[in-house]
Amino acid sequence: MQPKGRYCPVARTLEIIGERWTILIVRDLLIEGRARFQSLLKSQAGISPNTLSARLKQLEDAGVVNKQMYQDNPPRAEYVLTDRGRALADVVSAHFDWGDAHTDAPAEK
Amino acid sequence: MQPKGRYCPVARTLEIIGERWTILIVRDLLIEGRARFQSLLKSQAGISPNTLSARLKQLEDAGVVNKQMYQDNPPRAEYVLTDRGRALADVVSAHFDWGDAHTDAPAEK
Repeated sequence: MQPKGRYCPVARTLEIIGERWTILIVRDLLIEGRARFQSLLKSQAGISPNTLSARLKQLEDAGVVNKQMYQDNPPRAEYVLTDRGRALADVVSAHFDWGDAHTDAPAEK
Repeated sequence: MQPKGRYCPVARTLEIIGERWTILIVRDLLIEGRARFQSLLKSQAGISPNTLSARLKQLEDAGVVNKQMYQDNPPRAEYVLTDRGRALADVVSAHFDWGDAHTDAPAEK
């Protein structure tokens, strides 16, 4: 690996997807293909609308997510991953695999 | 993938390594093999000693890191990854690869 700090690609990736909730939003968009704000909100148990909105804006600014209007009046948007966003599938998978192998699922009710 | 929320291994992984700095600490321990507190502190430009200490404690509690005393007086510890911690190499690599392919390194001075 290369030197640390901002020169390290690990750190640079975390600048984009290292905030709480961000990988879970990417996970949902990978699974769903495209999703509306309300559906993301419902899926992310515990996230506030303001935080979801801020995370989506950060992902748009980073070129990871595209916001597409599908209705004008009232305005309604849905979110899709860009190519760069879909390339995060390996990051999400690595989290999935480690969690699956090394953590316990909560007991079923 | 399985249902979302805490049943999702992605979310369970983030409960352990999703806090800011945590993956960078794991990265350093993967590279160094073992490291003292001061050396981790120096490597993580910008982390406070209290935050580093809290993150290391969380990683110990999660069975990802072992704290080993190498001197009694004054007491000095170093940190190593457990097997479970070393298994995070794939997560760190996935971050490395995405950052390497999809973000720009800061310009060299």
